[in-house]
Amino acid sequence: MALYQENDLRIYNSLTRKKESFEALNAPHLGLYVCGPTVYNDVHLGNCRTFISFDLVYRYLTHLGYKVRYVRNITDAGHLENDADEGEDKISQRARLEKLEPMEIVQKYTLGFHQIMEKFNAHPPTIEPTATGHIVEQIQMIEKILEAGLAYEVNGSVYFDVAKYNQSNDYGKLSGRKIEELISGTRELDAQSEKRNPLDFAIWKKAAPSHIQRWQSPWSEGFPGWHLECSVMSTKYLGPTFDIHGGGMDLKFPHHECEIAQNKASQGSEGVRYWMHGNMLTLNGQRMSKSTGNTLLPLELFTGNTEKLEKGFHPTVVRFFMMQAHYGSQLDFSNEALLAAEKGYHKLMDAWQKLQNAQAGSNGEFSVSEWRQRCYAAMNDDFNSPVLIAHLFEAVRFINSAEGAQLALNAKDLELLRQTFHDFLFDVLGLEEISESQGGEKLDQVMQVLIELRAQARADRDFALSDAIRDKLAAAGVALKDGKDGTTYTLEN
Amino acid sequence: MALYQENDLRIYNSLTRKKESFEALNAPHLGLYVCGPTVYNDVHLGNCRTFISFDLVYRYLTHLGYKVRYVRNITDAGHLENDADEGEDKISQRARLEKLEPMEIVQKYTLGFHQIMEKFNAHPPTIEPTATGHIVEQIQMIEKILEAGLAYEVNGSVYFDVAKYNQSNDYGKLSGRKIEELISGTRELDAQSEKRNPLDFAIWKKAAPSHIQRWQSPWSEGFPGWHLECSVMSTKYLGPTFDIHGGGMDLKFPHHECEIAQNKASQGSEGVRYWMHGNMLTLNGQRMSKSTGNTLLPLELFTGNTEKLEKGFHPTVVRFFMMQAHYGSQLDFSNEALLAAEKGYHKLMDAWQKLQNAQAGSNGEFSVSEWRQRCYAAMNDDFNSPVLIAHLFEAVRFINSAEGAQLALNAKDLELLRQTFHDFLFDVLGLEEISESQGGEKLDQVMQVLIELRAQARADRDFALSDAIRDKLAAAGVALKDGKDGTTYTLEN
Repeated sequence: MALYQENDLRIYNSLTRKKESFEALNAPHLGLYVCGPTVYNDVHLGNCRTFISFDLVYRYLTHLGYKVRYVRNITDAGHLENDADEGEDKISQRARLEKLEPMEIVQKYTLGFHQIMEKFNAHPPTIEPTATGHIVEQIQMIEKILEAGLAYEVNGSVYFDVAKYNQSNDYGKLSGRKIEELISGTRELDAQSEKRNPLDFAIWKKAAPSHIQRWQSPWSEGFPGWHLECSVMSTKYLGPTFDIHGGGMDLKFPHHECEIAQNKASQGSEGVRYWMHGNMLTLNGQRMSKSTGNTLLPLELFTGNTEKLEKGFHPTVVRFFMMQAHYGSQLDFSNEALLAAEKGYHKLMDAWQKLQNAQAGSNGEFSVSEWRQRCYAAMNDDFNSPVLIAHLFEAVRFINSAEGAQLALNAKDLELLRQTFHDFLFDVLGLEEISESQGGEKLDQVMQVLIELRAQARADRDFALSDAIRDKLAAAGVALKDGKDGTTYTLEN
Repeated sequence: MALYQENDLRIYNSLTRKKESFEALNAPHLGLYVCGPTVYNDVHLGNCRTFISFDLVYRYLTHLGYKVRYVRNITDAGHLENDADEGEDKISQRARLEKLEPMEIVQKYTLGFHQIMEKFNAHPPTIEPTATGHIVEQIQMIEKILEAGLAYEVNGSVYFDVAKYNQSNDYGKLSGRKIEELISGTRELDAQSEKRNPLDFAIWKKAAPSHIQRWQSPWSEGFPGWHLECSVMSTKYLGPTFDIHGGGMDLKFPHHECEIAQNKASQGSEGVRYWMHGNMLTLNGQRMSKSTGNTLLPLELFTGNTEKLEKGFHPTVVRFFMMQAHYGSQLDFSNEALLAAEKGYHKLMDAWQKLQNAQAGSNGEFSVSEWRQRCYAAMNDDFNSPVLIAHLFEAVRFINSAEGAQLALNAKDLELLRQTFHDFLFDVLGLEEISESQGGEKLDQVMQVLIELRAQARADRDFALSDAIRDKLAAAGVALKDGKDGTTYTLEN
């Protein structure tokens, strides 16, 4: 029996706003679609969190024995500034700034995105389709929506007719918005607007003369609307109805709402059975925002090369930090919280080391099978990783309570504890061990430079400098020790 | 003056069959297109050689100061077995075997290909377009060829009319074949063939019912012919006429011949100014072939997990081995040849170590500037890396001839030798130093401490200290670089 048959996985479905027992449509096959990045700049930490959250989902589903087809797209065209229907294309704008061709921008930031995801130990999706790779299919979906009478063409652009769609459907059902309120909350259309109604959204846009990325279509030389690609690529690779669609909470409206409408209008079914939304990040309690300077890039986080942090953090520590919160909860990044996570991470890994070297004894009070059930129960409860981690720490306390290497477990239970600990730590949470030999020869050479500088500063009686060197190194996890043969150093992880 | 203005680069142009002085069409901009892999299996070592050869070309052109737009495609549809116009699609065939969706095969082997290229330290192209990403553009090119009367439609498929094209053009000019001989060498058409002439080739194929990858077109639901994508993607991103087109020699006929015909038929110009072809690999003197078992995969080469080799070889050693042959010559892989290359590689790197620690003296017989000219002359002679390497070994002998650390060079010439050696070894040949553990997170953290200390020293106008930090690091083989986004560092050994 596969693990998924033994486990009652419950998922919070954003569409029904409740936790539901998950039933795969074609088990063991399972279709998962996640909205990927628009590759016009360095990936945001907030986006990273979304992708890492769904990496946890993907990993647990795979662990349960599902054969997951995991589709995460790359938006490489059609995404306009402010997520709007007018304005400049995000990628073209960046291409102009960097004096590159749009597809060079796409290549540069796709490679950068992949590198960051690899550092976080996030598995690549099994299909990574692009918007430009599905122009023909997008044109076909527009044709179907037009045939259904739920879109109209104006001057070479095609708009989805939300009001008409809403007559026999519920536009707003995912985000919980009422169309009347949406309309009253929208500014009136400009006189020159091509839309019949402010809620209508573009599914094909005629390209302005300056727009570089453009394709021939029955309506104009232009480009597809941003919302359309996800409807097309999810249903192309996962079928007209599929299991799970994920994305960041900021995409719920209008992006995902529009996806549902497009699916329904073009194929008669809404497409998605379980909608999942990851929550946002804050930094020191505030919304991250470029304009206020309250931002943090993944690389700054890893190197510590930012005034927001006193030191850098290993990607797996950051990942562990993220796993300490439920994907559906907001998470605040701060120097203190990361330092605490780092301690927790090392505690967990130290226990794992001990567990590997542990010897069997006879069973005491700790019941491995009961504990193991609770680990699964945590993950079955809408992928509750913080509760899982709490259970792992329960095992840590048990492991650390042993005197010597012998645990109060018989051989069989010791093996089960090891296996379960390993499965959840590495396969499901996706953590990695940070290896000891972190520096090697070059680190040693650079450390000698610092030790010499400090010795010189002390000889010059510049104690402000010599102390600064010692303190900064301590903050970076390097302890200096002065002995009679000179100064040596040790790494503190 | 940019380096490319001082150097008379000569390229062997397969089209004219002679070495020609290279003139870029829009210097400093330069367009380079290389036929990439069909991602249906683990990349072959022979393909790796082609891509590494063109990585050398890309690196040297970049070193000369050209701003290279380097396009290398990914063939993810339309490539049929035996490179033919009939039969199963390579990717679909593999998808059936592995029980995956074709685009899962594409993702799996694209990721694998990227990993191998990264191990070989080959730069990614600046644009990496896919066949499926350019269906609209391929349909448009077919329309133009039909309009020009140089293709015909039969039962939903479109074929290029080679005989008609040849009436006012020279089909065979690249490969040096005469059309009469080509025709006489071809089997007669089957009675059921749709082609008018056996030399005609498909530019659009109607999909059989079982064919998965298919798109709507004016002629049928089908897929583009394999030869078409490269014509479309090269001219889309590099313009109707561009500088250099490269590929493996096996692609010269018919693939590249067909590209020329398609370009000429659709746009009136042939497209490519300089055609370059990389030569093949053999293994122990024999053609590599799966059916005879005479094959070697890149990973087997790295791990030594094959009976063909007595040990594994580091990717940079394999790269060095490839660089010891001219890209246009055949190269034979064998255990002995790789062992010899490994020795040579270490000799080169040992000399580089010595050179870094060398001290200046007064000039003797070795003329750095004359030697440097010969290094450039070698590369200017159609990227002649083996001759370049011979020159590097001449410098190695000079370096090793020194008694003690002092070289018979004044400070200025020593610096020029260092710079030139470094440029050719690392930037142009793309070799890497093999180190036990070069860097890691801790080194990065410690380097940040040093960078901060130096920034503080400069802010305090303590230039003695800031210079001491820079110089001591340089002596330790760490170069600091101040940019507008702060200071970064690179490891030099």
